[in-house]
Amino acid sequence: MKRIEIIQNVLAANDSIAAQNQRLLDSHNVFAINIMSSPGAGKTSLILQTLSKLNKRLSIAVVEGDIASTLDAEKVKNEAFAVVQITTRYMSENCSLIANMISRAIQNLPLDDIDLLIIENVGNLICPSEFILGEHKRIVISSLPEGDDKPIKYPMIFAGADAVVINKIDLLPYVDFDVPSFQNTIINLNPTVKFFQVSCKTGIGIENWCSYLLNEMIPMPTKS
Amino acid sequence: MKRIEIIQNVLAANDSIAAQNQRLLDSHNVFAINIMSSPGAGKTSLILQTLSKLNKRLSIAVVEGDIASTLDAEKVKNEAFAVVQITTRYMSENCSLIANMISRAIQNLPLDDIDLLIIENVGNLICPSEFILGEHKRIVISSLPEGDDKPIKYPMIFAGADAVVINKIDLLPYVDFDVPSFQNTIINLNPTVKFFQVSCKTGIGIENWCSYLLNEMIPMPTKS
Repeated sequence: MKRIEIIQNVLAANDSIAAQNQRLLDSHNVFAINIMSSPGAGKTSLILQTLSKLNKRLSIAVVEGDIASTLDAEKVKNEAFAVVQITTRYMSENCSLIANMISRAIQNLPLDDIDLLIIENVGNLICPSEFILGEHKRIVISSLPEGDDKPIKYPMIFAGADAVVINKIDLLPYVDFDVPSFQNTIINLNPTVKFFQVSCKTGIGIENWCSYLLNEMIPMPTKS
Repeated sequence: MKRIEIIQNVLAANDSIAAQNQRLLDSHNVFAINIMSSPGAGKTSLILQTLSKLNKRLSIAVVEGDIASTLDAEKVKNEAFAVVQITTRYMSENCSLIANMISRAIQNLPLDDIDLLIIENVGNLICPSEFILGEHKRIVISSLPEGDDKPIKYPMIFAGADAVVINKIDLLPYVDFDVPSFQNTIINLNPTVKFFQVSCKTGIGIENWCSYLLNEMIPMPTKS
């Protein structure tokens, strides 16, 4: 019972810091998304595609969450307006980003000059589902080779998503993945979720994904 | 500081229960492996291939760890001698199997009748690296579509592995994955690791993987 109480306190404290983060972002008209997925599903690739499509129209900052290494931050630094790397401590309670890490990160960013903040969470379908960060939209990427049963096995992260991006759609001929069945399982958990089928390798579907982001940002005025 | 102390106590308690588990398994001549990977890398598929290859020679029990659902237990129940399902609570501190879950599971198994215990951990490259369970060998599965940078981004789980199974090798023509570079990164972390290249879809490499298991089990006598 003691341990459950500690965890509940941690989650309550996190939610309260996340709400502060969102108020701060709102006061500077910064729209924030939190991108979550399994390792290797394509978070960094989707961010790179999004940057290449939108960074002439928007000023985009990226927060990179990683257990170890700055590999992803290196990949996006040339395209993004600003990048903040967060290397999480290697502890089970911090196996994903938590709101106070984002609080520190956004204090180091020139928020008045930023339109869109993309937070790349660590690769994990479990822990990130519990910790809101202050983001406006929660995005889950699933890639075809992972299999279409993931929403049955990791329901919480799909239940809490605003949009699910189905990546590596170019591999459809080579893997067993039933797209309608995958989508229906998620709709049962989460009837208002949006879906995007993309390939970050070929660029298919990136246009639709970026249109969604731009639409969701309205009525936030762009600052450029 | 208080939180770090709590975590250290949790890990120390876990290690001590894991040691008890291993003593109990040893006293019944049960060889145990802990299979870890990202979601969708092929843990259940490797277990099904292993069962189909070895279940005439060995009596094999499976412990299935899942966040939610009994999907994997349903898949293996016809082939395994016994299956125990563990559905972990949806809390960040239990985002993987921990030793006391295995302790309860093996108390429900007829250990004298079992040669090999396969533990399928939850799909996660982070949390399982911290929690030993009492297993004799720690196995990590990586699949080609995840990308060859995973050992850089999630070093701990690879550093602690006895063997790394590279799955979905049939997808090599369709994805960017540099097998030698992937292996070299792991060897730098872990010079004694063994590698197996397999496709659980086509069956390639399963023979080698099963020979490794049989060799590692010696001098444990088979009971059948």
